[in-house]
Amino acid sequence: MLRDMIVIGTGLIGTSVALAARRAGVTVFLSDRDPVAVRVAEALGAGLAQSPQRPVDLAVLAVPPAHVGPVIRQAQSSGLALSYTDVASVKGELERIVLRSAPKPSAYVGGHPMAGRELSGPLAASAELFAGRSWVLTPSPVTDEVTTERAKALALLCGGIPVLLSSREHDETVALTSHLPHLMASLLAARFCDAPAGAGQLAGQGLRDVTRIAAGDPALWADIVRANALAVAVALRGMHTDLSRLLAAVEDLAEPGPSDRAAAERLVTDVLRRGVRGVTHLRRSGSGAAVPDLSAVLRVVLRRHPGDLARLLSSAATFEISAEQVAAEIDTDGAVVVRFPVPVQEAELAEIGLRIAGWEISRDVSPARNHRRNP
Amino acid sequence: MLRDMIVIGTGLIGTSVALAARRAGVTVFLSDRDPVAVRVAEALGAGLAQSPQRPVDLAVLAVPPAHVGPVIRQAQSSGLALSYTDVASVKGELERIVLRSAPKPSAYVGGHPMAGRELSGPLAASAELFAGRSWVLTPSPVTDEVTTERAKALALLCGGIPVLLSSREHDETVALTSHLPHLMASLLAARFCDAPAGAGQLAGQGLRDVTRIAAGDPALWADIVRANALAVAVALRGMHTDLSRLLAAVEDLAEPGPSDRAAAERLVTDVLRRGVRGVTHLRRSGSGAAVPDLSAVLRVVLRRHPGDLARLLSSAATFEISAEQVAAEIDTDGAVVVRFPVPVQEAELAEIGLRIAGWEISRDVSPARNHRRNP
Repeated sequence: MLRDMIVIGTGLIGTSVALAARRAGVTVFLSDRDPVAVRVAEALGAGLAQSPQRPVDLAVLAVPPAHVGPVIRQAQSSGLALSYTDVASVKGELERIVLRSAPKPSAYVGGHPMAGRELSGPLAASAELFAGRSWVLTPSPVTDEVTTERAKALALLCGGIPVLLSSREHDETVALTSHLPHLMASLLAARFCDAPAGAGQLAGQGLRDVTRIAAGDPALWADIVRANALAVAVALRGMHTDLSRLLAAVEDLAEPGPSDRAAAERLVTDVLRRGVRGVTHLRRSGSGAAVPDLSAVLRVVLRRHPGDLARLLSSAATFEISAEQVAAEIDTDGAVVVRFPVPVQEAELAEIGLRIAGWEISRDVSPARNHRRNP
Repeated sequence: MLRDMIVIGTGLIGTSVALAARRAGVTVFLSDRDPVAVRVAEALGAGLAQSPQRPVDLAVLAVPPAHVGPVIRQAQSSGLALSYTDVASVKGELERIVLRSAPKPSAYVGGHPMAGRELSGPLAASAELFAGRSWVLTPSPVTDEVTTERAKALALLCGGIPVLLSSREHDETVALTSHLPHLMASLLAARFCDAPAGAGQLAGQGLRDVTRIAAGDPALWADIVRANALAVAVALRGMHTDLSRLLAAVEDLAEPGPSDRAAAERLVTDVLRRGVRGVTHLRRSGSGAAVPDLSAVLRVVLRRHPGDLARLLSSAATFEISAEQVAAEIDTDGAVVVRFPVPVQEAELAEIGLRIAGWEISRDVSPARNHRRNP
C-alpha cells in the first residue's frame, strides 16, 4: 500500500510519523525549511534528508496550519506525490483552501492524529506517539478512494485508530474536546500571572492539572482558534451561559437576602453532579484501560490486633492483589472482615498465598461493599 | 509538645493524620459515628478505637465541614481535649461559628492541610499524605498561643509545612487556587454529560487532566462553595469578565465583518500568552522540584550515519544523562552537533562514559541552543 513517502516538516509530529513509517519498512524522505531540523530527524533514523527522484505514494504535510495551503499547492504542481495528507488540528478551512486553489484536490485527504506532547521539535519525536490514539481522516466530496486508503494505511502503521469524519464534524468535535478546554485552562492560568504571593504556596495538584495544557505555544493556538473560530465560538457561548448561571447562584449564596437560597444551592449542586457524570462519561468513552473483571472475592477475617489490616494489605501487595478495590465490614462476632475483589483466574493462587502468610481466609462470591474506595 | 490526641472522623484525612501521629510516637484515640470506619482505622494501626480517660493535648476534628460546629461544641463541653483544630477547606465561617457558640473559642485554631486524593475512606489513608504539603493554620483574634503551637506541632510531625494566615486570607486564596478550578472543571466536564458520540473517542489526555478534579463528591463541594460563597463569587466574577471578552473576540473572528479582526486576534493571543505566564508562575511558586543546575555542556559531533543520534540518546540514557534538555545544531563542516546540558558534578563521569561508548565528545561552556526541547 505504502512503498515510499515524504514527510514535509520534521518537527515533533512529522518526525514521529517518519520514525513509525521507517519501522514499518517504508522508504521515507524528509524535508524541512530548517536544515538543522531535517538533519536531526535523519540522524534519529527517521529517513533520508533528500528529495525523491520520482513521485512517492504519499506526502505528509506536517507544517504549521497556516503553511499547509501554500505547501500543498507547490508540492502538487511539482508532482511530488500521488496522494497528500496533513496533520493540522483544524480541517474545514484547509479543505476549502485546497478545493479552491490546489492543482489536484482529489489527491488530498485531511488528517489529524490525536496525539502530541508538551515537548516539541524532532528531538522529542517517538515512533510510539500515535499508538492507540484516534487518527481522524476527513475526505472531501472530491477526495479519491485510493488517497483515503493511503492515509488510512499510514495511520494504521503508526499504530493509530483511523476515524473517518467530515471536516465539519471534526472541527465541531475538537472545538469541544480540545480548543474549549485549552482556552478555559488559559483563562484560569492567566489569573495567576499576578496572583497574590500566597497563591502558589497553596496551589495543589488539582490546579496544576487543570492549567497544565495552557503551557502550549500561544502562536500555534491563536492560529487554531482563528481557523476554527465558528465552532469555538459556539463552544465558548455554551460555557459562558453556564458560567453566568453559576455566578448568579453563588452571588445569591454570598448575599443572603430576598433571593432564593434553596434554588441557588440546587443549581450549584446540579453543576457539580453533572460534572461528575461528564467525567465518568469521558472515562468510559475514552481510550482508557478496560475495567478488570473482579468477579471473585477473597474474604479475610481480622481478629482484633491494631495494625493487622496494614500487615494484610502489604501481604496482599506481595501477591499482587490490588488494594484499590478493598472493602471492609464488621461481622456478627464484631471482627473486621476485609474483602478483596480479584480476577477469577487469580483467586485460587492469591487465596493459597494469603493462607500461607497466615491469614484466616475464604473465597466468596458476594460483591464487595461498605467502605469501598471510590473508583 | 503532643503526648496524646484524639482524631474525630476516621475518613481519608483523619486516618492519615492518625497514622502519621502514631508513627511519631503520639498516643492516638480514634472516634467516628461509623463503627466500621473507626475499626478499620484501628486495624490499619492508626490508634485505639476508644475514648481517652482524661483530656488529651489535641482533638483533631476531621468531620464534614457542616458538622465541625456541633462536634466542637459537644467536645468542648465534655472537656475532651486541651486544644482543638479541624481540617475543613473553608475557615472563616467556622471561625465565626466557634467564636459565637463554642464554650472555649480560645482553645480552637482552624486548620487546613492542603492534601488529599481521589480515593476516600480510611482504607485510602497514608501517613505520607501530608509530606511536603502546606498545612494552613488560621488563629482567630482570641486563639491562645499554646493551641496554635500544638496544631503546628501536629502539622510538622505529619511532614507538612505550617502556613499561618487569617481565616479571610485563607478563604480568598483557596477560592482562587482550589474552588474556582474545581467549578471550572465541573462546568467543562458537564458539557460532556450528553456529548456527541464522537466526543469521547476524540478526547485526549489534555481534556482528561482539565476535568479530572470534577469527579469530587458533589455534596462536599456544594457545602464548600456555600461556606465560601463570598470569595468564590469574586473569583467567578473575574473569570466571567475574562470569558465574556474572549467570547466577543472569537465571535469577531467567526463573523468577518466591520469588526476589528486584528484587535480580536490580539486579544486571543494575549489570553493564551497570559495563560503560559500563569502556568510558569504556578510551577515556580509551587512545591515542584527545583530546576537542576545544568551549567556544564557535553558536545558530541555526529558524522553522517542515519540513526546515530538515536543510538547516542540511548547511550546517554545508560549514563543517566537526561535527554530532556538536548539541543542540536550543525557545525561549519556540516556535521550534526548535539549538546547535553549536565550538572557540573556529573559532567566528567558522563564525558568519560560517552567517550568509552565511542562518541566524539568534548566538554563545553556555551549554553545549549537551537532545537532545544521546550522545558
